[in-house]
This record gives sequence, C-alpha cells and structure tokens, in this order.
Amino acid sequence: MTESKESTVRLLITCPDQPGIVAAVSGYLHRKNANIIHSDQHSTDPEGGRFFMRNEFFLPGLDMDGLDDLRREFAEEVTNGFVMDWSLNPVWIPKKMAILCSKVDHALMELLWRSKRGDLETEVSMVISNHPTLRREVENFDVPFHHVPVGPTLRDKVTAEDAMIELMEGNADLIVLARYMQILTSDFVKRYERRIINIHHSFLPAFVGADPYRRAHERGVKLIGATAHYVTEKLDEGPIIEQDVIRVTHSHTVDDLKRLGGDIERHVLARAVKWHLEDRVIVDGNKTIVFRR
Amino acid sequence: MTESKESTVRLLITCPDQPGIVAAVSGYLHRKNANIIHSDQHSTDPEGGRFFMRNEFFLPGLDMDGLDDLRREFAEEVTNGFVMDWSLNPVWIPKKMAILCSKVDHALMELLWRSKRGDLETEVSMVISNHPTLRREVENFDVPFHHVPVGPTLRDKVTAEDAMIELMEGNADLIVLARYMQILTSDFVKRYERRIINIHHSFLPAFVGADPYRRAHERGVKLIGATAHYVTEKLDEGPIIEQDVIRVTHSHTVDDLKRLGGDIERHVLARAVKWHLEDRVIVDGNKTIVFRR
Amino acid sequence: MTESKESTVRLLITCPDQPGIVAAVSGYLHRKNANIIHSDQHSTDPEGGRFFMRNEFFLPGLDMDGLDDLRREFAEEVTNGFVMDWSLNPVWIPKKMAILCSKVDHALMELLWRSKRGDLETEVSMVISNHPTLRREVENFDVPFHHVPVGPTLRDKVTAEDAMIELMEGNADLIVLARYMQILTSDFVKRYERRIINIHHSFLPAFVGADPYRRAHERGVKLIGATAHYVTEKLDEGPIIEQDVIRVTHSHTVDDLKRLGGDIERHVLARAVKWHLEDRVIVDGNKTIVFRR
Amino acid sequence: MTESKESTVRLLITCPDQPGIVAAVSGYLHRKNANIIHSDQHSTDPEGGRFFMRNEFFLPGLDMDGLDDLRREFAEEVTNGFVMDWSLNPVWIPKKMAILCSKVDHALMELLWRSKRGDLETEVSMVISNHPTLRREVENFDVPFHHVPVGPTLRDKVTAEDAMIELMEGNADLIVLARYMQILTSDFVKRYERRIINIHHSFLPAFVGADPYRRAHERGVKLIGATAHYVTEKLDEGPIIEQDVIRVTHSHTVDDLKRLGGDIERHVLARAVKWHLEDRVIVDGNKTIVFRR
Repeated sequence: MTESKESTVRLLITCPDQPGIVAAVSGYLHRKNANIIHSDQHSTDPEGGRFFMRNEFFLPGLDMDGLDDLRREFAEEVTNGFVMDWSLNPVWIPKKMAILCSKVDHALMELLWRSKRGDLETEVSMVISNHPTLRREVENFDVPFHHVPVGPTLRDKVTAEDAMIELMEGNADLIVLARYMQILTSDFVKRYERRIINIHHSFLPAFVGADPYRRAHERGVKLIGATAHYVTEKLDEGPIIEQDVIRVTHSHTVDDLKRLGGDIERHVLARAVKWHLEDRVIVDGNKTIVFRR
Repeated sequence: MTESKESTVRLLITCPDQPGIVAAVSGYLHRKNANIIHSDQHSTDPEGGRFFMRNEFFLPGLDMDGLDDLRREFAEEVTNGFVMDWSLNPVWIPKKMAILCSKVDHALMELLWRSKRGDLETEVSMVISNHPTLRREVENFDVPFHHVPVGPTLRDKVTAEDAMIELMEGNADLIVLARYMQILTSDFVKRYERRIINIHHSFLPAFVGADPYRRAHERGVKLIGATAHYVTEKLDEGPIIEQDVIRVTHSHTVDDLKRLGGDIERHVLARAVKWHLEDRVIVDGNKTIVFRR
Repeated sequence: MTESKESTVRLLITCPDQPGIVAAVSGYLHRKNANIIHSDQHSTDPEGGRFFMRNEFFLPGLDMDGLDDLRREFAEEVTNGFVMDWSLNPVWIPKKMAILCSKVDHALMELLWRSKRGDLETEVSMVISNHPTLRREVENFDVPFHHVPVGPTLRDKVTAEDAMIELMEGNADLIVLARYMQILTSDFVKRYERRIINIHHSFLPAFVGADPYRRAHERGVKLIGATAHYVTEKLDEGPIIEQDVIRVTHSHTVDDLKRLGGDIERHVLARAVKWHLEDRVIVDGNKTIVFRR
Repeated sequence: MTESKESTVRLLITCPDQPGIVAAVSGYLHRKNANIIHSDQHSTDPEGGRFFMRNEFFLPGLDMDGLDDLRREFAEEVTNGFVMDWSLNPVWIPKKMAILCSKVDHALMELLWRSKRGDLETEVSMVISNHPTLRREVENFDVPFHHVPVGPTLRDKVTAEDAMIELMEGNADLIVLARYMQILTSDFVKRYERRIINIHHSFLPAFVGADPYRRAHERGVKLIGATAHYVTEKLDEGPIIEQDVIRVTHSHTVDDLKRLGGDIERHVLARAVKWHLEDRVIVDGNKTIVFRR
C-alpha cells in the first residue's frame, strides 16, 4: 500500500440500528472538514437490528494530540443519544503483533514474510514459542524470539502464561496463534478478548478429535479447509473471520493432505490477520462483520 | 429474497468527490424519516476523484406519486452544489428484461429459469431470436417469443433492428444478449446505452478471431473463462461487470472446452444480470463499480 | 461429446494389488486388437493395497452379442489368478436414470436440462415425486412424471417404495435423489446399492439437525457447501463423490444462503451424476476413486 | 512426502499412438518384478495421435548401476518397433535447481521455503541475480548466492550468460526464472530447452506492453492471473504448465493488484516447479500434458 497513512484515522462503530446515525456521523466529519476515503456500513435489520460502520478519513495535520481532542469531541457531539461502541484508530501507528508458535513453521513464516514485505500494517514485536526450534528462522527476520516452555501441570501453564503476559505487556495489540499447540487458560483468553486470532483445519463433514487428516483421508473427502477465528473460552468456536478450502483427490496421501492443509492454513490466517490489522473486522456476538474490499 | 419491496427505493449517485456529499444525502434521508437498509460508497480518490453511492431505503407508505415528489424534492434540496448523476429507483417495480438469442440455449435457459424462481428482480417481457429454434423452450416459461430473422445485407439488419425496437418500446429496461450471434449497429447500441449486457468467452492469453475454443485447445490453456460486459460501440470492449474461469486439463477435447465454456458463460451472465437488476452496477467511463454483497 | 460411442466399451476393475494385473489386462486387449482410448489406474498401496482401473477402448464392429462373448473370454483368460470385481460396460447404451424429487426444482431442472443438451450420457426414464407440484416442468422435457404420494406411517412408506420399485423395474440403472425429502428404508437402499446418489448441504463446521442454513447464518460461516454421495444405510454418510463450496459474507441473509446453497447443490450433483454415468467412479469401502479428467 | 524413494524410478514415454504400447511396457515391467506405484497415460487420438505415459515403479535393490542396465535392456526389449522418446529417472536423486531472480523476492522466497520444508523434490544448487539485493535472504537458507550483473549491451548480456552457464554446468537440471527481469538470448534458451520455467502475470483480456497492472486497473478487470510456462524463443509463448487467477474489485488500487498478482504468481510458479520436479509434465509441441494428482 502506497497510500500515505499520516493524519488518517479509522472510525469503527457498533450500535443498535436507528435512524440518524449516518447523518450524525457524516455531518460531524463534514464539519471537521474530514476527507472520507472509504466508508462501509451494515445493518442486520433496520428495525431492531444492529448497525456497524467503518470510516477511513483524512484530517490534514492531525497528530496524536489532535486525535485525543477528536475523541473527546466525538464522544460529546455525536455519540449522545446512541448506545454506541466506537473507536478512532490512528492508521499511522501500526498495531503491534505477537506471534505464538510451537514447532511447525508454515503459518509463522507467512506472517513474518508478509510483515517484512509491507503487506501487513503491523510491527511484529516478538515471537514466543514453547519450543526453541524456530529461533534462527525468526531471528533472520530481526524479530525477537522468546522461548517460554510449558510444563505438564496446570500450575506450569499459568507460570508460562504469566511470563508471556509480562513479555507482551504494552507490546501486543494483537496475538496470533500460528499453530501454537497449547490450550490457553480462560483467564488468558479473557484478558485479550477479541485480540487473539487462531487458525485450525476444517473439513466437510467435520472431524472431532485426534488425527483429523488421517480421518479425513479415511472418509475420502474431496475438499480440505481452514478456519481463522477469534479465540473465546469455547475452544475453536469463536467468531469466524475467514475460511477457505482446497480440492483433493483419492490419490493424495495423508501426508499430502497435511501439506496442502498447511498451505490453506497459512493463507487463510494471513488474510484474517491482514483484515484485523486494517480494522476491517467487527465482532457481533459470535459472528464477524468483515468489510472486505 | 423474502424482503418486502413495497415502499423501498434505491438511490444511485455518481459525482466528482468533494466533502459533504454523504452528509447532505444522509441528512436529507434522515429528515424524511427514511430507514436505510443498505448503503455502499466508493471514491476513486478523495481529492479530485469520482464518488459513487448506492443507498437502499424504506419510506413507509411511499407509492409512485410519492416517489415523484421525492425526486423533485431531492433535486431541489440535495443535488444543489454538486454535479450529480442520480436516480431513485422503485424496488417494488421489477425491471423489464428482453433477451436476445440465436440457436444456443444455455445462457437463455439459465436466465428464464432464475427469473421464474424469483432469483432475478425482473419480468422477462420477451425473447427475440433471429432463428425459430428455441420457441418451444421459451413458451414453456409463458414468455412471449418473437422470431425476427436478419437478412444478409446491412439494410436487412436495420430492418430487423427496427422491428426489435418496436417490440421492445416501453418493454425493455434491460436487453441481454444471451449468445445472440448478430453484431448490432452503432445506432442500436447508442439507443440503449448502458442497458445492453453481453457475454463472451475469455482466455488467458486472449485469442482474437474465429474458432477460439479450438485455438485455446491448441495452445494448451489450463483455464477457460467468460466475461459479461455492457455493450458499447467497440465490440467486446465495454465496461466489464463480471468474469470467472474454470479449470481444464490436457484431457479435455475441444468439445469439452465448449461445453465447460457454456457453463461458465451462463453463470457469469446470470450474476452480471442479477447485479444490474438490483442496481448494484454503476458505470464509470469504461469501468464498473459493482457493489456486491 | 462428439466422440462416437459405437463399439466402445469401458472396463472397470477392482482387486487386491499384485504384480501383473496391468500386463494381463493390456496383453489381452492388445491380442483383441482393441484400441485403448483412455486408461486410468490407482493403487492405495502397491504392497497389500487395492488396485483400481478404468479402461475405455474401441473394438471395431463390436455389438451386444460380441460384448457377451468378450465378457466370457475376459473371465476365462484374464481374471484367473486375481480376485477381481470387474465389469465391461457398452458406452453406446446410455444408462437409464430415474430422478426422485419433492417440491424443490433446482437440482431436478439442472439434470433434465443437461440430459437434454447431451451433457449427460443418460436416458431419463422417469421422474417420481411425492408431490404433484413439478409435473408440468418435467413433462415439458417429454419425460414421464409419476406422482407417488407417501403417507405418514411406515406401512405407507413401504407401499410407496413398492410402487416406485415397480415403476423403476428394468428402467433405472441409476436413481438420483434431487432433493427428495423422504428417508428411504434400508431394504430400498440395499436393493439399489451403489446406484443411488444423493445431494445435501455441507458446512464448515458442520451443523446437525433442523434448519441448517439458519444455524450457519447464526454462526457467521464464510463458506457454504454441498456434498454428493452414494446412499447407504447410514444417513448422509455414504461414499463421497464430489464436494464444493461458495463464498458468503455477513450481508447475506438466511434466504440468500438457501438460494446460493441451491446453486452449489445443483452443480455438485450434476458433476457427480455425470461422472457416475461415464463410469468414472469406483467405490472402495466408504470412499470413492474418481477418475476425473 | 514420506514415501521412500530408494530404488524407485519414473518412466516417461512419448510416442505416436499405436496398439500394443501399454502391453509391451507393462509386460516388461512385470517380467522385471517391478512394483508399479502410479501409472498415468494419455492419448491425443488413438488413431494417428500421440501417446504419453508416466509410470512410477519400485524395483527392490535397484541402484545407479542397476538403473544403467535397466535403461539398456529397456531400449533393446521394449522400444523396438515404436518411435519412442523415453527416460528412466531415479527418484532417489533429487533434481538440481538453479533460481534466477532480480530484486523482487516473492517467487524466490516461496521456492526456497518450500524446498527447505521438503515440499519440492529438489536440491537448490544456487541462486543467481543481476542485483545483489537479495543476498542475505538467500544465504539465510544456506543456499549459494551469485551476483552476476548484466551490462547494457548485447555483448554484456552474452558475457553474463556465459558466467551463469559456467556456474550452472552440472548443477542445474532445472532453471527457474523467479521474476528475473532480463531477456535471455536464443542460444541460452536452446541450451536448456524444456528446462527453464518462467512465471508472468496474465489478464482477461490480455494487456501487451508496459505497466500491465496499471492498464488492467484502468480496464476494470475483475480477475488477475498468472501463467507458468517453459521458456522458448518466443517470449512468453512457451508451453503452459499452470495458470490461476484471483478475484479483484473496483476498490483495489494498482498497488493492491500488484501485491495480489505477486501472491498468485508465487503459488502458480511453485505448483509448476513441483510438477516438473516430480516428472509430471511432458511437453507435446507447444502444449503440456500434466499428470496431476
């Protein structure tokens, strides 16, 4: 993206739908002489539903102090009379991303590589792994690598999570689980609500339990897929951000399925992360609104 | 679609981008107590670019007389100060569609069938063909079929087009060329500017000239595709509405390519027609803005 | 397909893999001066696995009497020493297809239409429905329509199935359930083993139970799909022949999902039926080998 | 792939189609007690067409000496009476791959990464670039990087190609142009006939000449694609191995198209290279036969 990001802001709004929201917001932005670059909106139902809006606008000369003023003013002049969740996000400050992984590298590498190429609006602040395996690969990208092993007991897990929380404090606007093979505690998940993205394989029909690729092979599926979602306390059931599939045939072995599954996982995860970083994803209960291009 | 269409209107706007458009439009709709159901907008460049908007709103009790009042009022109160192309389209009145075809039925059948099932917001007013071949297939759908043969001379073509124009007068908001194998005159095309949609095959790389499927087969392409576009005076070069491809292999014969090409053509054409009928397509010079779901 | 089908035969083989099968088969066909047009094979594991083969060959002058001789000879000269399931199918005799449906027409229409256009190697011998709704649509294709209502009791169901069996006796090499909304008895399924193809919706993740599109909508899935499979006694769990998906977004309503689901269903079913009719599908336990182009 | 590759061989055959080829080949392999793992064949026309075959078989204990014997014997016992192009390729010896690139890294990185992960049956012997830009990225993979600048004159180009030829002598079974922005001389191309793979962007319709992404954007295309092909003397017109496309919309900028184009290029190139390395691609004049899974 070559668009300048200076003085550019993204406004996200979620509220019960009612007449006048757009008029109030656009009237305000017009009075501020904001130049609207993109605008998307969605209503689940104009009568009694919920309303979602994403606005990207340019305000010449706006800096962080100006943004603070804008937030105060917006709260006073616009949000009155609406029960509104909203945020004003400075586009010129990339979100900090911490990546958690284990031994498998495909999803991690895709994220590091895209970040380096400027495809993702982010600064990768660190990679944390419960194994030392991928240290060199990560450090080749000049990204700090932290090995935080996780012992077998719940107490060990809490200790490890505490260490991770300390590392990430102030350094992780987004946490991405790039094939991190540890289950997180509810406390950890709650602390970073709607800020943890996970990727997992998906099949038609679904296979619950161990060794899913072998079971998909035994079932003779013709498609294998992946789902990227926000992590909630219910394992693998958080709001879906993106899904995709790839075609397979009877001649693919279990290992082929795993390899192709890895490919589809890294692409699906990269898209979900990109959209999150660009403030394109709004969570609505257990669903997402994704304002894609 | 089970959404009620009574008293529902779609507002389409094209104009040079400048601050205040959205504020003016949304302010007006708010004062009228309109309930905005969907809203999409696009700017090619906030500074010096063009702005496009599609608004679908519900105004309880609105009928055709009320819509005329609304158009007058909108012109006076909103469009002032903007150089604006705009239209207010009643959703409760389906557009009339005339389909032109020759002997090949796949694209025609897809349109008739989807219309009958309620997938397309349209009333198929007639089918016109330069061959009598498909009469029975059309009449099975209770749609009028007109055989308008076209002779070999330019004078014959003009005579045939005059006959078609007379048949379509007041009965064709949209004309779809569903594999109609006659080249239309410039006069005919100009009369129905941005109201004629055509479908043709597309390849990577492109093949100009006769017998394209044979040449695609000789070239060993791995994809064959189709492009739906508005018809302009430059043959096959009008604004593209939709494109898609299908994968082929070395084991497909020329006849297989034609059959698969027919499949991709009918689906691409059906999508383009659907979007046009739902006022989702705005032409911008030789390009289209398509506000897809 | 313009390839001539006269004197053309398809040989299908399933057997435990062991050295010499291909040599035995190809040696025999060579001695018969058969002209091999296509040949595909697959082994699940050369050591201890199963072997599958599809051969399409041309034997000038071969007619039904000659085919009977060929079958006798093949049994004597080739199958000896192998534990072989095999069939020799005359390509010039299209398989007879009976279609079962209820009130929804999309899958039925796709099959009737493709059959009429020559895309499917079949003769549609009849359509049977438990409702009279679609009589006219079917008869427009000059295909016999039989209304066989199904009462509420199991006894009623058996009576209806007996009526269907009588209608289909000698007239149904393949039975396609094109959204037939009745559960078939085990006896019926067993009688037509590997000769009944069904289509049903599929989601990532899967939704079991009633009203799946509403639940997929509530879950915010980004893909909806369809699976075509052979019917076995375990409902919706027979060998999968084909699957596909279509992308959806937050702005699609439940009705949109149903409409798009219908589209993907009819295409997936049509492909599965086409491949079955062309002897491209071999069942291996609960999986299929599909020799696609 | 976890399948053992020891003592495994791939036999590729191209010849005029005539009865008895399969019988001769499979009879011979059976006498040798070869265990056939995969077999694919294709005939452009059983009468007067060309026949193509790929056989993967296992011969316990076979080493390089044994393979030489096998080649001699095969030539004497099987190829007699057929005008046959054939090769017997030891699967246990990975092909050596040289990658040529300039400054853009996406295609290069995808190949290095997949090679390292074992997705590609290859040893990357070197990367050669006319710019020093990507040295560190390459050396991080422990792959030799050679900077061979190319001056402005034809004489400079020949000098550079001579240097590359010397580097690659005996070290390059395959040359991949991973966005190498220099036109190669005819002499260079002829020397490595059917051993150079290139990737370039593709559009519907095609755009010839400079700045294709800008022109595709101006034309408002809805798909952008990529084509991987063998390099012949006719620029960008060699036999196509693989193609694919990605969907774009009116809201993508020229830079977005370039970024998405880079993604589709790296995936298409990686698939084409993988299939070449696995001996799945046979060239037939200006087309390819690709025996995909």
